[in-house]
Amino acid sequence: MTEQEVVQIRPTADQYAWTFGGAAPIARVRPGSVLEVFTEDCFAGRVRTKDDLVSQVCQFPFLNPQSGPFHIEGAEPGDTLAVHFVSITPARDWGASTTVPLFGALTSTHLTATLQDPLPERVWIWQLDRQAGLCRFAAVDSDATVDLPMDPMHGTVGVAPANLEVRSALVPDAFGGNMDTPEMRAGVTCYLGVNVEGALFSLGDGHARQGEGETCGVAVETAMDSVVIVDLIKGRTTPWPRLETDEYLMSAGSARPLEDAFRIAQHDLVQWVAADCGLTQLDAYQLVTQAVESPLANVCDTNYTSVAKIRKSYLPGWRSRYDAHQRLRAQAGDYLSRR
Amino acid sequence: MTEQEVVQIRPTADQYAWTFGGAAPIARVRPGSVLEVFTEDCFAGRVRTKDDLVSQVCQFPFLNPQSGPFHIEGAEPGDTLAVHFVSITPARDWGASTTVPLFGALTSTHLTATLQDPLPERVWIWQLDRQAGLCRFAAVDSDATVDLPMDPMHGTVGVAPANLEVRSALVPDAFGGNMDTPEMRAGVTCYLGVNVEGALFSLGDGHARQGEGETCGVAVETAMDSVVIVDLIKGRTTPWPRLETDEYLMSAGSARPLEDAFRIAQHDLVQWVAADCGLTQLDAYQLVTQAVESPLANVCDTNYTSVAKIRKSYLPGWRSRYDAHQRLRAQAGDYLSRR
Amino acid sequence: MTEQEVVQIRPTADQYAWTFGGAAPIARVRPGSVLEVFTEDCFAGRVRTKDDLVSQVCQFPFLNPQSGPFHIEGAEPGDTLAVHFVSITPARDWGASTTVPLFGALTSTHLTATLQDPLPERVWIWQLDRQAGLCRFAAVDSDATVDLPMDPMHGTVGVAPANLEVRSALVPDAFGGNMDTPEMRAGVTCYLGVNVEGALFSLGDGHARQGEGETCGVAVETAMDSVVIVDLIKGRTTPWPRLETDEYLMSAGSARPLEDAFRIAQHDLVQWVAADCGLTQLDAYQLVTQAVESPLANVCDTNYTSVAKIRKSYLPGWRSRYDAHQRLRAQAGDYLSRR
Amino acid sequence: MTEQEVVQIRPTADQYAWTFGGAAPIARVRPGSVLEVFTEDCFAGRVRTKDDLVSQVCQFPFLNPQSGPFHIEGAEPGDTLAVHFVSITPARDWGASTTVPLFGALTSTHLTATLQDPLPERVWIWQLDRQAGLCRFAAVDSDATVDLPMDPMHGTVGVAPANLEVRSALVPDAFGGNMDTPEMRAGVTCYLGVNVEGALFSLGDGHARQGEGETCGVAVETAMDSVVIVDLIKGRTTPWPRLETDEYLMSAGSARPLEDAFRIAQHDLVQWVAADCGLTQLDAYQLVTQAVESPLANVCDTNYTSVAKIRKSYLPGWRSRYDAHQRLRAQAGDYLSRR
Repeated sequence: MTEQEVVQIRPTADQYAWTFGGAAPIARVRPGSVLEVFTEDCFAGRVRTKDDLVSQVCQFPFLNPQSGPFHIEGAEPGDTLAVHFVSITPARDWGASTTVPLFGALTSTHLTATLQDPLPERVWIWQLDRQAGLCRFAAVDSDATVDLPMDPMHGTVGVAPANLEVRSALVPDAFGGNMDTPEMRAGVTCYLGVNVEGALFSLGDGHARQGEGETCGVAVETAMDSVVIVDLIKGRTTPWPRLETDEYLMSAGSARPLEDAFRIAQHDLVQWVAADCGLTQLDAYQLVTQAVESPLANVCDTNYTSVAKIRKSYLPGWRSRYDAHQRLRAQAGDYLSRR
Repeated sequence: MTEQEVVQIRPTADQYAWTFGGAAPIARVRPGSVLEVFTEDCFAGRVRTKDDLVSQVCQFPFLNPQSGPFHIEGAEPGDTLAVHFVSITPARDWGASTTVPLFGALTSTHLTATLQDPLPERVWIWQLDRQAGLCRFAAVDSDATVDLPMDPMHGTVGVAPANLEVRSALVPDAFGGNMDTPEMRAGVTCYLGVNVEGALFSLGDGHARQGEGETCGVAVETAMDSVVIVDLIKGRTTPWPRLETDEYLMSAGSARPLEDAFRIAQHDLVQWVAADCGLTQLDAYQLVTQAVESPLANVCDTNYTSVAKIRKSYLPGWRSRYDAHQRLRAQAGDYLSRR
Repeated sequence: MTEQEVVQIRPTADQYAWTFGGAAPIARVRPGSVLEVFTEDCFAGRVRTKDDLVSQVCQFPFLNPQSGPFHIEGAEPGDTLAVHFVSITPARDWGASTTVPLFGALTSTHLTATLQDPLPERVWIWQLDRQAGLCRFAAVDSDATVDLPMDPMHGTVGVAPANLEVRSALVPDAFGGNMDTPEMRAGVTCYLGVNVEGALFSLGDGHARQGEGETCGVAVETAMDSVVIVDLIKGRTTPWPRLETDEYLMSAGSARPLEDAFRIAQHDLVQWVAADCGLTQLDAYQLVTQAVESPLANVCDTNYTSVAKIRKSYLPGWRSRYDAHQRLRAQAGDYLSRR
Repeated sequence: MTEQEVVQIRPTADQYAWTFGGAAPIARVRPGSVLEVFTEDCFAGRVRTKDDLVSQVCQFPFLNPQSGPFHIEGAEPGDTLAVHFVSITPARDWGASTTVPLFGALTSTHLTATLQDPLPERVWIWQLDRQAGLCRFAAVDSDATVDLPMDPMHGTVGVAPANLEVRSALVPDAFGGNMDTPEMRAGVTCYLGVNVEGALFSLGDGHARQGEGETCGVAVETAMDSVVIVDLIKGRTTPWPRLETDEYLMSAGSARPLEDAFRIAQHDLVQWVAADCGLTQLDAYQLVTQAVESPLANVCDTNYTSVAKIRKSYLPGWRSRYDAHQRLRAQAGDYLSRR
């Protein structure tokens, strides 16, 4: 293995991007590079106490600051970007979650418009014990507390969209973006179809942990020190974001209504399984039907995101068309052993 | 512990019910009774070979035959029925799955109407190795095979609906019914609100295993020999079906579009957690947001079903308002030890 | 023309039906009969003043009382019932509308569940000037008033459902029911597929007028003196409710989400136009696309209802397969001239 | 009245914009200017015969070419742009409509993904008789023909989006865009909230006529010679596109699922009526419920569009907060009389 190129990025306040597409790259990196990236939390670090209400301290659309975009050398439309998450580590010993007026799944919103009053605005500060791997919930209306396992992840991982578009960093879609899936943890390789030259990859929106669906719209938000390896798979298209771990293949569909997000993810997983296993579409449909796990990612963002995941051990004759995860996994091990 | 009342039910072909509500009870049982029930598969046993196409051998609405209904003595509107699944065992060494024209998530349907042709109709016969706990997928268009773990469950568990209604056994709703969640396995206690005198509980639609979402609309369908304990919780209402295991609390919402099913399940779990833990609604909203798992159940039936589940160990000060699962679990152990 | 059979029905308080299906017929009538029917308002007449809040004076599910069901002699599954509305006349000089907690399009509901408080409960009493054909809106929070044209219609028109089901009178579906379309006015012939012997037709839920979508969930509700002719078209199926006027053909689809209701109505109209005009499905698809009007009916009920309507004058070579509307129109003229 | 500034625009092939936002203005115009604009059809003029299949002659995303954008001098975020349609005249004596694979309401799509084959691809060429005001449907699979009234409109009318976004010209949203409502005809004033300096207004996608919902996804597409007056209302925000005619106020909501588009439009109309009539929100809710017309615009685009319209004559004490339509109407009369 050749010497790894390691790029360290800690954006200054004015360097963050607020969109996928439409922002100038902050760095050009070669495929195979290791990125050591600091990401700010979704509030741009402005919610620090129980009194920092989002409606008062944050200014739309300056949410979900993106570290990036990175121009990946040689990336062209028709290629696939592979992003391997080596590590995701909270950069602070606390995280914040909130209600946001007219945002979340159990409230009316600007799109699901009703004449009712918004829910009250609240802030929960979660203490993060990074040694023990715990994050502590403390109720705001009583003394109740409980420790939950930390499970760090990135809410946003994406590239520039197709069709000349520029999308807010709050949007998940075929280009990735604000998918908010807890599956985006260390050990995962995320595949994203390249839509523009250089791909223009960015990430952000770290969560110390998040439930499936991100019901109130906000996870345990915190800054992250993350390490990712970016690689390029030439000449292979990827219609919707895909994830691979040692155990699982996963597709992530984003749309509204939620059944369309489900359909996209399942449809893509059926195609993926059919292609990698040499099954017909109908046989893959049957196998996926009986074997799939279908955890929701978010049911609060501009598009909802549904994940379809299947164990590799359930796939007869599986052979990866990407042929990237094992290699990146090894490179990650190499990186970690040198650190 | 007193002597358990054990009721054995193996319906004759003309004894099955095809609806929730509207059918005369086949037995009256006392709360606390153990039911040893045979359930026929969703096809009423008519799909046995690759040539038994549903459109030819089945006759709508004679699908999802229900074993029951059982009149539970003393059950009245305002009570909750607790159904504990002691064991669910395939009664045959094979199961069947199929495509059904204009049914399933990755096809247009009678409700999501398009002008396209239906998908081709296929039958997959799965061999069940009950000793090894495996079910074998065999592709129909190639020689590929793979073994998946058996994970027996019931697709339909329900009571008579409210509001004078009678619903097809293919429908999931607030009364339970065709929820098709893989969580309905042995070890689970299912809570259902009672809508009519006697509750009129029934079950059916056994699956040797099923992926989350039941994507093609049909699981690995098989007849079951199941044992359930039915118990009654007087004076406690349950708005939507709830499940409890040793580790988890779960709510199941059924509606369209899928985000409404999600909202119902999450909303109900928030209320449940708030009540059992003495948290305010907003604190429970925050805790559930970060702790919930949200696997889909079905995205193919008349209503879609979404499950919200939370680990009991994540609940500060949790104390069950039902106070039934541990007792039923003990009773099940007693039953099993005597068998 | 033979002597018309005229049946007069004014149900007593305990004679109303609250479901489609599941209720014993209150009369048997021959095809071609004229029914002079009184229908009570959706509140069963209990909302009479601004202080009669629905949550206090009404008891779920005793809403939308149905006059009927009528057993139509000779009606069998596979036939179509034709119901021609001769006249619909408010039986009182006032109507009532209200907000209902957690019901309506611009509020969360039991299905679109949120943690917000319900909207305030209000009653608006509308004065009906039947001579002038006007109904008067009077604001409750100011002195503003305005007169709108009266446009009497029936919210519920339906038969017993298929598949052994019994549905609440609040539900619209393939059997008709609570479609809440303003198109259901005098002069219309409504076609409904027969699902059970005798069809078991009923109607109710009169509105002095209603906007398209019934946004707050409640129209200008009033009792009606209505005259309908019921006729039978043997051996012709009708998959979803269809309406015919002198000028228009219309299909009504009911489902959730709303796009599925739209798809059903448009799909059915495409099939209807293709069959009656001898066009291929694709040619009918093109013609309907350019010619259709698509007013919403309700976006508040258990299912939402979307109407697709096309002018007969836009249909090349149109010839009615039902061959009923003109005949019923003539019979209505005959009836009116004798009255 | 001062001399009108008249700007004539006929873009060259490389001058069209394919997005809302993100394109450099082709002209700067002063508020009150008359724009005489040529717009190319949605296919960029590439579908001319029955053999010009969209999948072969068009290249995504080069659809819906926009004439514009126009920088409106003085327009700033927080203002409202008023666009008055003086005339919309087909520039050719034919229009084209087509099926497009996996696009339209009665087919699965890339978002409503199924495993079925796409519908066959067809082209219908409509002859336009501009003198008689007729467009002629000719079936492709038979000899059937029929004349429908011409009713020219623009499918796309919009400004640059908020939140730093750039959206495809195929998207309708709060910035307007591809709403595809037949209400966008001559005589209408369209109000659009300004999101960026200069507003960056553009229009295109002319239809000789279109049914409500644009069921197959494509109207009778044709190039247009259109005249619009653009004006600026300083310091008034407009959350969603609004339309005003001599008779009606209308709001247009765009979202998925379709009920959310409905909610947005109705919610906005309730707010508009409440503000202009001095009614409380609940009184306006009641009045809109009984008076509104709710025609669908499109149920095929990236977002669906629903229109809520109410007669001005039904509005007690109505007084326009925009105070623009009558003035623009007069200016249009003045322009037409000089031509």
